[in-house]
Parts: sequence; C-alpha cells; structure tokens
Amino acid sequence: MNYHLAADVGGTWLRAALYREGEITPVRRERTPTRGAGRPEVRLRALLARLRPREGRLLGVGVACPGPLDPETGVVWAAPNIPEWREFPLAAYLSQALGVPVRVDNDANLAALGEWRYGAGRGHHHLLYLTISTGIGAGVIVNDRLLHGARGLAAELGHITVAPDGPVCSCGKRGHLEAVASGTAIARTAAEALARGENSSLAELPHAPTAADVAAAARAGDALARRIFAEAGAHLGRALAGFLHIFNPEVVILGGGVVQAGEVLLRPLEETMRAEVMSPAYLENLTLTPAALGDDAGLVGAVAKVRSFDSM
Amino acid sequence: MNYHLAADVGGTWLRAALYREGEITPVRRERTPTRGAGRPEVRLRALLARLRPREGRLLGVGVACPGPLDPETGVVWAAPNIPEWREFPLAAYLSQALGVPVRVDNDANLAALGEWRYGAGRGHHHLLYLTISTGIGAGVIVNDRLLHGARGLAAELGHITVAPDGPVCSCGKRGHLEAVASGTAIARTAAEALARGENSSLAELPHAPTAADVAAAARAGDALARRIFAEAGAHLGRALAGFLHIFNPEVVILGGGVVQAGEVLLRPLEETMRAEVMSPAYLENLTLTPAALGDDAGLVGAVAKVRSFDSM
Repeated sequence: MNYHLAADVGGTWLRAALYREGEITPVRRERTPTRGAGRPEVRLRALLARLRPREGRLLGVGVACPGPLDPETGVVWAAPNIPEWREFPLAAYLSQALGVPVRVDNDANLAALGEWRYGAGRGHHHLLYLTISTGIGAGVIVNDRLLHGARGLAAELGHITVAPDGPVCSCGKRGHLEAVASGTAIARTAAEALARGENSSLAELPHAPTAADVAAAARAGDALARRIFAEAGAHLGRALAGFLHIFNPEVVILGGGVVQAGEVLLRPLEETMRAEVMSPAYLENLTLTPAALGDDAGLVGAVAKVRSFDSM
Repeated sequence: MNYHLAADVGGTWLRAALYREGEITPVRRERTPTRGAGRPEVRLRALLARLRPREGRLLGVGVACPGPLDPETGVVWAAPNIPEWREFPLAAYLSQALGVPVRVDNDANLAALGEWRYGAGRGHHHLLYLTISTGIGAGVIVNDRLLHGARGLAAELGHITVAPDGPVCSCGKRGHLEAVASGTAIARTAAEALARGENSSLAELPHAPTAADVAAAARAGDALARRIFAEAGAHLGRALAGFLHIFNPEVVILGGGVVQAGEVLLRPLEETMRAEVMSPAYLENLTLTPAALGDDAGLVGAVAKVRSFDSM
C-alpha cells in the first residue's frame, strides 16, 4: 500500500493526516499546538514522523502553509504567526528529515486546489476560491492550473482596493477588500457602531462582539448586525463582479467561518454580484457554491498537490 | 514561401497585412474604412482576398476584433461599433471564403500576445498588458498562455470598481477603472472642470478638450491638466498594485494613446503603484514598460495567434 502525508500549518495548530493513495478520507490524523517546546519546524517534523505509515510506502508529503512562499522551492518567505520562518526552506528541511519529496504551497491556494480536485470545483477548468475568515484568502485555477505568478505571490484577491478612503488592512495598505469584509472587519465595524452608541442587541454582550456574534444577531433580526453584513456582502459582491470580469470562471467557491453566517451575508453578496456584472454572459453557467471540504480543504489540497507533483 | 494574413477590425478602419512565415514586418498592408458599401464582413473578406499572396502558400488568417467573442470558435457575441455582428461566426465565415484556418480573438488579448511573442514581453511567462485609449483594454499571459476564462470573456481589467461612487462606465456600471482613467474619462473630467469655471489654458481651445489636449496642457505646466493626469495616474497605479497582488507578473506593458502623455501620467502611476503594493517582493524583477509594437500590436498578435494555432 502507498501513502501520502499532508500537513496544515496554522497559527494555533499544526495538523497532519495520513492518506492511502487515491483516497481523501485519512487513515489517521493528529494535531499539536504550533507553539510549545522546540521550533515549529521540529514540532512539525515530529508530528509527521508519528503519522508515518509503519508498513507500506510513503510517496510524499504536502504542506499547506500561510503567507508568502515559493511554491516551486518550498521556501517560506515570511509566515504570519511563525516569526521563526523567514526565508525558511521548509520543503528541503522536511524532505531531508523524512527522506521523501515534500511540496509546500500557500494554504488558500491548496484549499482551492483541494476543492477543484476533490470538492465543489470538480470538473471545472476555471475556478475562484475565496475563504472569508479572520482575513480573506483566495486561490485561483486557470486552465486547470493554480495561479501562482512569477514568484508564487499571486491570487491575493483580498488585497485589492475597494474603498480608497476605507480602513487600513492587515497588510498595512488602505481600503482593501479584506479591510472591509473579513471577520475582523465585521467585528471592528460592530465595535465602532456600539462605541457610537448605536442601538443593538450586541450591546448586551459581556465582551466585544466577534463576527460570529454579529452573525447570530443578524440572523435573530438585529438591525445593526444585518446592516453590517449587508455592507460586507455588498463589498464582496462588487469585488466578485470584478473578479468575474478578470477571470471569467465557471465556479466561485466560498469558504471560511464568516460564510457560515448564511443568508445575511450571501443574499446581499449574490444580489450585488449579479447587479454589478457588466454582461449576463459572465453569469451563464456560473456556479456560486459553498466550499465542500470545510476545515480539511488545506489538508486535502496538500495531498492533491503532492499527488500531482509533476503537473502543478 | 509560406504566408500568414492578419486583420485588425476597428470601428473606423479595417486593417490587414501579409506576413512571411516567421517575420513580423509585413510584405504588404492595406486598410479600408469599416463603414461603406456592403456589410463589414464582406468588406473584410475582400480586403483579405486582395492581400492574399499570388504565389506561395497561405497557412492561415488571424483576426483581432473588439468586443466579447469566443476565441475557440471565432463567434463574435457583440462587437462595439459593428452592430451587424451579433453572435456572428466570423472565423467560420472567413475560413469558408478563404479556404484556410482562421483564428479570431479580442484585440487587447492579441496585443498582449503580440507584445509577449514579439515585443516588450519577450521571454516572460506572466505578463499584464493594458491599453489606455478611448477605453481601457487588457490582456494577460499566465504560464505562457492567454487568460481567456471559461467563455473567452476574461482579462477585462478596465472593468473593476475603483471608485464605488464614481462616474458611470461605458459598460453601464459605476466607478470602473475605465470610467475614471481612460482618455474619455480624462476629457470628460476636463470639460466638467471648465464648466465649473476652473482656470486653465484649456478654456482657450475652440473645442471641448480631448485627452490629447489635456496631455499637451499638462506637459506645458497647466495646473488643472496636471491634476487631472495625476488623478488618473493614481487610479491606474492603485489598480495596478491590485493586479500585481492578483497576478504577480514579471512585466507590465502599457499601450494606447493616453500613455503618450508621458511623465505627467506615468510618474503618478508608478509612484502610486509602488506606494500601494503590499510587499516589495511584487516589485522585485518587475518590469514596467511601454508597448513596443504600437498600432501594429493587434496585427502582430493576430499573426502570433494563428502561428501558435495548436498551443493557444
């Protein structure tokens, strides 16, 4: 029996899973806190070593990692939340330690790849994947290949300016989509409204509202919370219309925790996208769909990446 | 000797040229008004027939055409300025008339392809081409292939929202890049400023200022004209920063008449692009360059397209 290992590097957890060749349900899985005794890459190596199959053959390892990195060489330029990794040759380190080929790619790229190969994007050639959570990540499939650009830095769809005078983004620039429509932005907008004394059930919470709190209040009919989601949805819908003009995809896949808010986000998003697209031709045969792989998209994408070693 | 024919369909002129295999300097060229006796496709067919080589072998014809079309089948959905072409099978019509394969693609896509194969983008794998004239057209090369999307409608980079409350675009939607930074937008902004009574040398013109008039005034130091170009350049630079985040190209090529304005446009454009990009990594090894092929980019791209019949 042949196997692949996949890992997903997060700011809080290092997750890994062992897969039989051709399968996407893991044989076993395990996680360990990212922070703890030892450097993160040593903890990751140990995690992968524990999951390694005791019999059969390990063909390779795929790793989903946040932040700018070189998907060709597996060098991580700068991983958010992992300050130890600056120009760190993660693929080479793990490959030497484990004795098998290791492929590393951006986590949102790999979630897109996972959805394309095994999830909501199967059978399509042109795909957009957006994950809306703390930030806004994205991955794009063009002509059955991940869009990486010259140095692996492409597909950062959360970092286009949608409100030139808007709030500053996590990246330091002003008015990006991520700065007005991420979970962080939704929570910040709610906190600002409460600080201005706006009337809302959110004022009764014993803590500053999270995006999930705002979503629950919106679903329960709270006017402020509904307005905040309507505005975030409109920003996302207008940006998506632009992405349709740029990529003309067959399928747009939405993942991430904020999408769990449901209709209070998705209705204004879809209405605005349809209203702002410049020709109905972009909407013909377009599928707008939630992600199918959930939290495992990164792991499944990492497996897809190492399985398609030669083609991606 | 083997030959290719290329044609460029414009609202005013139908242009065509005959090329020897492997060359980009035409053997002969000719143009005829788009409007005149007979339907445009009949006039185009006659123009191509006149240029057809009298000896040697014609291998194929490439046609650059405005507007949404299917680059696989050569069906034109709707050509601006040519109302006769609605779902018109231009490639099939010309192929039957001339007895050779005919390839049709969007004029901005083919200009990008021409610059990539024979012009300012040679040797690169990831390229953005923007042409700033009456409107803003674009073409994108990703992994050595034109970005077409599912139905050939991709790469419309002029149609992203950059000013949500801005003026209405030629496409009917609000606040697109084309609506604030095209030649049409520059002329309109100048006319509006003059109508408000703003002080400018442009007020002395005997006609409403064109974008070329505004460029000449800006180069001569006129404050209003300089401000209009600075604002257009800032819009373009901010949008370009977003396109760098989306595509991470190695080269950005700027074509079109408005770029002839020179430093009054290019300086604010480049300054804003550099200021708004979220990581210097996007600028490393990035070339920002004027187009090399000028008015012939569409013709040369059409030749490149028919020469690379199988790969594009």
